Amino acid sequence: MISRFTDATAEEINKVMDRSWQAFHVYRKFPLKKRADFMSAIAREMEASADELVHKAMSETNLPEPRLRNEFNRTLFQLRSYGAACEAGDWLEARIDTAIPDRNPPRPDIRKMLVPLGPVVVFGASNFPFAYSTAGGDTACAFAAGCPVVVKAHPAHPQTSEGVARAILKATEKSQMPEGIFGHIHGSGTATGRLLVTHSNTKAVGFTGSFSGGKALFDWANQRKEPIPVFAEMGSINPVFFLPGKLKESAIETAKAYASSITLSSGQFCTNPGLIIGIEGPELQDFITALGNEIKHIVPATMLHPGIAQSFQNNRSAALAQEGVVTVSVSETLPKENQGIPTLASASASAFLNNPLLHQEVFGPYSIVIRCKNKQEMREVATHLEGQLTTTLMATAKDIREHEELVEALKNICGRFILNGVPTGVEVCLSMQHGGPFPATTDSRFTSVGADGIKRFARPLAFQNWPDELLPEELKNANPLQIWRTINNELTKKGIL
Amino acid sequence: MISRFTDATAEEINKVMDRSWQAFHVYRKFPLKKRADFMSAIAREMEASADELVHKAMSETNLPEPRLRNEFNRTLFQLRSYGAACEAGDWLEARIDTAIPDRNPPRPDIRKMLVPLGPVVVFGASNFPFAYSTAGGDTACAFAAGCPVVVKAHPAHPQTSEGVARAILKATEKSQMPEGIFGHIHGSGTATGRLLVTHSNTKAVGFTGSFSGGKALFDWANQRKEPIPVFAEMGSINPVFFLPGKLKESAIETAKAYASSITLSSGQFCTNPGLIIGIEGPELQDFITALGNEIKHIVPATMLHPGIAQSFQNNRSAALAQEGVVTVSVSETLPKENQGIPTLASASASAFLNNPLLHQEVFGPYSIVIRCKNKQEMREVATHLEGQLTTTLMATAKDIREHEELVEALKNICGRFILNGVPTGVEVCLSMQHGGPFPATTDSRFTSVGADGIKRFARPLAFQNWPDELLPEELKNANPLQIWRTINNELTKKGIL
Repeated sequence: MISRFTDATAEEINKVMDRSWQAFHVYRKFPLKKRADFMSAIAREMEASADELVHKAMSETNLPEPRLRNEFNRTLFQLRSYGAACEAGDWLEARIDTAIPDRNPPRPDIRKMLVPLGPVVVFGASNFPFAYSTAGGDTACAFAAGCPVVVKAHPAHPQTSEGVARAILKATEKSQMPEGIFGHIHGSGTATGRLLVTHSNTKAVGFTGSFSGGKALFDWANQRKEPIPVFAEMGSINPVFFLPGKLKESAIETAKAYASSITLSSGQFCTNPGLIIGIEGPELQDFITALGNEIKHIVPATMLHPGIAQSFQNNRSAALAQEGVVTVSVSETLPKENQGIPTLASASASAFLNNPLLHQEVFGPYSIVIRCKNKQEMREVATHLEGQLTTTLMATAKDIREHEELVEALKNICGRFILNGVPTGVEVCLSMQHGGPFPATTDSRFTSVGADGIKRFARPLAFQNWPDELLPEELKNANPLQIWRTINNELTKKGIL
Repeated sequence: MISRFTDATAEEINKVMDRSWQAFHVYRKFPLKKRADFMSAIAREMEASADELVHKAMSETNLPEPRLRNEFNRTLFQLRSYGAACEAGDWLEARIDTAIPDRNPPRPDIRKMLVPLGPVVVFGASNFPFAYSTAGGDTACAFAAGCPVVVKAHPAHPQTSEGVARAILKATEKSQMPEGIFGHIHGSGTATGRLLVTHSNTKAVGFTGSFSGGKALFDWANQRKEPIPVFAEMGSINPVFFLPGKLKESAIETAKAYASSITLSSGQFCTNPGLIIGIEGPELQDFITALGNEIKHIVPATMLHPGIAQSFQNNRSAALAQEGVVTVSVSETLPKENQGIPTLASASASAFLNNPLLHQEVFGPYSIVIRCKNKQEMREVATHLEGQLTTTLMATAKDIREHEELVEALKNICGRFILNGVPTGVEVCLSMQHGGPFPATTDSRFTSVGADGIKRFARPLAFQNWPDELLPEELKNANPLQIWRTINNELTKKGIL
């Protein structure tokens, strides 16, 4: 079986992308319901192999079974709920302006809806072997949009990826989908990724991973003769601003919640709170002490793969060695091989502001508390942060009134703004925004979680002056699919008489 | 007054962009109604100077008065109708998922809406001194989205641009907008544009013009430390496919309509039909003859500026000199200085397929008829075309049934698909798609005409766990703005109890 996981050759990639292109012209014409049924069929096939897939993922990622079961079910939920959203059709943004023949000049009949972009290349994520990999969120969104998918399996969990790919292929057969609707490619280096992204049949890219990986894809995609969109979710440090009133009110119980959020799944979440900002004083000191005490008792866990464990060790050491950085607390349990040791550090705001290295993500069970002299310095930290997936505000109503400028500044740097909670835990629902200003993602106008993510892989097409019988079902007078449409500026499910 | 129009210095640009950034933080918090009122105020101020502005534009662009009056009114309509759309709030994509506290784990309350990106730099278009310049579609969309605007005036109509800028500044004062909400910059070379696009305060770019201009902005924007979106509409050749039944039915009357569409405003529209494709036979020959006869009688008109006239002459000569290209007909009236001579050419499909130069736009009153041997060759032409703003199909119902594959292929290359009409005439309405696959535009997922263009300059922001009193009006339980929102997957105007 090893031979299967050798890097795909350029010839193999050409073949896969050609089949994908052919499948596109078949699949994009399928009714929404058929797309949704196909996605349900994938969920069913995966469910039938649940134990096998979860066990494969356990052995390849070191993630514990409950965490993987949870993620597995989330993946099925994504396939089913994005399929339902696909069929409901709100995402199509159907707009109709009917003709006004007696106007001078006459107004033609124009009807617009979203249509699929073409084959989408998806790069599996190391930290989500199911939910953001082979049949994960990007794949589900692309299928819903009407696009074929070619997945590059993450080299750290190729067996899991193969297993999921087999489930997709079974569903493809049973649902009588065109053969090329799904392709699965292995590749351990950057060459495979580059060939996939620069292939002329590739029309969009989905990626979840590191900044360097995502940025490379983005650059290749933009340097093509025909540039294509890249949706790269590249993680962030997810700053948490603790305001004085809130600290006073609940420093101790908050410390418990944060110790857990920082070290959950060995800190291997892109919404891990890597930066905590507070104003110096006895309350902040109490909080740091309490958080440090919690961190001490967290037992180290094995990280996703040796490469990530090594990176964590290097980045953690580099951060702790910076001028002004104090190690507050580490786990009392010695880490075994490839385990990440839970760590809390602290630094002054001026040390942070003067050192770009401290603004970078340390992917793993690590967080640093930034001590500001006052409100002004806290605002300075806020305005010097880069784009983030999430920002969290820990504050009382009074705190918020007293820090209005800070609150406004924070809205401007993130995709999700949490009040009095933890950033980990990304709900799969329509209101979710998982995406934020660069460098959190390459396109802050879209989300990679929730059914709005379907729109990443579609573009509007307007039909002008087409008779009813030649229009797509979505735009016909009678509204046979019963979708929401904006007709002459009015949102309605009514048909046109 | 001349001194006003010297190129802005880097220092001046820094100052303008800093003021724009400051204004952003004030303007983005303004209620939708205040934005709409401001846009109406701009329309009012422009209207008060209508004659002066139109006369300035006539002298700077050589466009005739009725054409400019028309465009001027279109500009006012854009400002008012996008303002109304801004206030109606459908574009905000408000989504609410309410909390489920007794779920395990509890589901938090999450509410999402679009928020503005930040300062937008708009590059005025040479061919639309009003509708796609200083207070044109991009500017109106940016203001509606909540973004300040900095316009780089087109160097071919700086006086007109100054006049419109003055109207905007008057409206700014009367509406008590922050001073930096609008900036106006002159610059004749590429240096000014580069400084504007690469300035760290610039968060998006709107452009209408040439491929080389748009592509340069796109590349600069993507090479920034923080890449930003560029919406460049770079024109296209707008292919028109004449199917055999339709040619037989109405070759002669269609010729009249097409002669007019090709030469309207001296062919200076980005939706000008620059390529006509038909299958060889007596009907096509009749059509070519009829179209040629019409073109003969069209009187040349002065082009926008000497540079464009010179480009037209060069590109036209180059196209006509290609192997296999025949000049079918030119205007019988000799052109005066800076006039574009209406021209119809013809070539075989094989000559066209083998020569990339013939796929390029000849901006001006020019079109070429491509003669295909048969249906297969016509399809080959279709699949070799690059992305287009529009594609037009001239066909009977029977033609369409007999050319299903061609019709499907055409859907895939354009933003607007017209049946039995002409591509010129871009209606300002919600269903309009003015944008298409690259190289027609740099982002096929958005439109630059119609209120959906507002979404170019916004991104989603999700609020998690915020109490009602701290949420923006748009997301409050009671729905005080009475906008459409998707609450727990149901589209409604209802409030939350």
